[in-house]
Amino acid sequence: MFNFKIVAESKTTRARAGILQTAHGEVETPIFMPVGTLGTVKSLSPEELKICGAQIILGNTYHLYLRPGCDVIQCFDGLHGFMHWDGPILTDSGGFQVFSLARLRKVTDEGVLFQSHIDGSSHMLTPETSIEIQACLGSDMVMCFDQCIKYPACRRDTRDALDLTTRWAKRSKDAFESDKNALFGIVQGGMYKDLREISAHDLMKIGFDGYAIGGLSVGEPKDLMLEMADFTLPILPDEKPKYIMGVGTPEDIVAMTALGADMFDCVMPTRNARNGQIFTATGTINICNARFKNDIEPIDPECTCYTCRHYSKAYLRHLYLSKELLAYRLNTIHNVHYYMDLARRLRKAVCDGRFEEFRGKFSKSYIV
Amino acid sequence: MFNFKIVAESKTTRARAGILQTAHGEVETPIFMPVGTLGTVKSLSPEELKICGAQIILGNTYHLYLRPGCDVIQCFDGLHGFMHWDGPILTDSGGFQVFSLARLRKVTDEGVLFQSHIDGSSHMLTPETSIEIQACLGSDMVMCFDQCIKYPACRRDTRDALDLTTRWAKRSKDAFESDKNALFGIVQGGMYKDLREISAHDLMKIGFDGYAIGGLSVGEPKDLMLEMADFTLPILPDEKPKYIMGVGTPEDIVAMTALGADMFDCVMPTRNARNGQIFTATGTINICNARFKNDIEPIDPECTCYTCRHYSKAYLRHLYLSKELLAYRLNTIHNVHYYMDLARRLRKAVCDGRFEEFRGKFSKSYIV
Repeated sequence: MFNFKIVAESKTTRARAGILQTAHGEVETPIFMPVGTLGTVKSLSPEELKICGAQIILGNTYHLYLRPGCDVIQCFDGLHGFMHWDGPILTDSGGFQVFSLARLRKVTDEGVLFQSHIDGSSHMLTPETSIEIQACLGSDMVMCFDQCIKYPACRRDTRDALDLTTRWAKRSKDAFESDKNALFGIVQGGMYKDLREISAHDLMKIGFDGYAIGGLSVGEPKDLMLEMADFTLPILPDEKPKYIMGVGTPEDIVAMTALGADMFDCVMPTRNARNGQIFTATGTINICNARFKNDIEPIDPECTCYTCRHYSKAYLRHLYLSKELLAYRLNTIHNVHYYMDLARRLRKAVCDGRFEEFRGKFSKSYIV
Repeated sequence: MFNFKIVAESKTTRARAGILQTAHGEVETPIFMPVGTLGTVKSLSPEELKICGAQIILGNTYHLYLRPGCDVIQCFDGLHGFMHWDGPILTDSGGFQVFSLARLRKVTDEGVLFQSHIDGSSHMLTPETSIEIQACLGSDMVMCFDQCIKYPACRRDTRDALDLTTRWAKRSKDAFESDKNALFGIVQGGMYKDLREISAHDLMKIGFDGYAIGGLSVGEPKDLMLEMADFTLPILPDEKPKYIMGVGTPEDIVAMTALGADMFDCVMPTRNARNGQIFTATGTINICNARFKNDIEPIDPECTCYTCRHYSKAYLRHLYLSKELLAYRLNTIHNVHYYMDLARRLRKAVCDGRFEEFRGKFSKSYIV
């Protein structure tokens, strides 16, 4: 059932446009996936997400396993029914969160013993349980359980995490039973090119429906992040979707697309919206800024999102300063629309054979 | 421009159905007005409000005067343009809030000197400035500046507040210049029937487009509230709209409609939604309740609101326990829809000549 098809390629870069076919519909790549950690993309309804252009969203296995728990989501035959989203869902494996959020972790070959960040209760996450939870969630794109290493990390620790990730990837694949959903391997290897290469080849040997690059955007300099992606992406098989996890800013997404990445996710459009940071064609603005006090213009007069069609910067600033719930939602609508529109324009540029031109214009107008 | 027409009356109670005509469209009475304190009915978009059945909303003069201030709202020719709501708006006078929220009040015949609850800055609100602010807001229904007295209050204080309210009502009318919007007088007089009568006659002598009853639902026993409304409502001219300010629960609204009230406002549906309290045909429920953990049913299978059409109690409980922004919105949609539907059904019962029957059924099924 799951399938990936490339429909256009840039001649001068590695950028490509494709179609992901899933049990819940098609996704046009390059694609950005809004993050719906707890079964909701914060502040938005599923209908709003679609109007913003969202085609696929991400759910977090660690969070959903702890709350509401699989017993609840099972009653709805999965996350789609539970949260009223009928499009594709990608779930992470819980690996990243268990290392970044949970307390008192004990990592063994078997898996990770950890304490919930909510109530301190003890849990064990293994490749098998991660796959089982993701199956319960009804995920269209399932991630292998992996060990994401912090930055900076020494070569030995990075190698150990990579090897564990490979063994877990094998077990994840063995545990994965779906014939309609996809299983992605996650390349680790930190900031060591040769280790990235080993990891990629390890995973390709096992064989997956798609490949993700994990362990980027974890605090390393931007140049290093791009260097690692630039090195790793071409190793991965071109006929499979390539997913850069947790990335990133608009300029990151443009750069990574040029390097051959197809899929992205990041909390940036949603989280920053709730902090008053808004993405525009010329860079970000902070809606609290006093210069917007009497500004009757929308964020971007050319933007077609609901927020820009109906509300001024003065109103958005007022809502935000007043801590009104509608502030978070209107800001989020705009930011998600901005990201989805960026992905759409990237794709169109590839299809129209003018990706380089688009990238040039983008980097001239978008001030970082 | 402003006009009120009665279209049906109950034969056995004082309930009536009418139409308020305003510069921003018609309102069918009895009507409940959701409270949009700061230029937003908390968590909802104007489109959602309309889908919930809202016909008119309330804005708070005190809040909007302090934040964002008239200089901002003026840039939009009023609150309608600022907040993207094209239906009628009623504004209170600021009187109630200045007594309940502001600090260091000094009441003189001239007006009230107070300090902002936001930043402590000093401001003076008078009948003239209140009317001026409400004109700047572009309010369709303007309230006279009044002194709302706390409960309990002695006869002398109540009388003083009443007399001041009368003098302020006269000045409010003198300051009111619109030929298309309505000005409402506010009956005070605390829990003293003879003082209520004096206040009502004072106001009727001045002459207003509508009459509100203030100073109820301020902590007095429910029986006393209903007794005062029962006594005061018939004194007011039947050809004018009668508005009970700050009321109330569903059962209050049913009872007050029977007594001849046409208009209601209360933060209850919106505030309680944000506290997890949901209104249903059989009474209120708290969505946090553990019995909803696996409950795949909507709040009310017969309810046609967006929330009930798409979401289960289990999902709403999960969102609420996770403090997700969507929780407040979905709960608010349901509660506002509930209140608007109650008003619609009250009106229909009057029009169909079966108000008594409706009231009987309501009080049997709705458990307080």
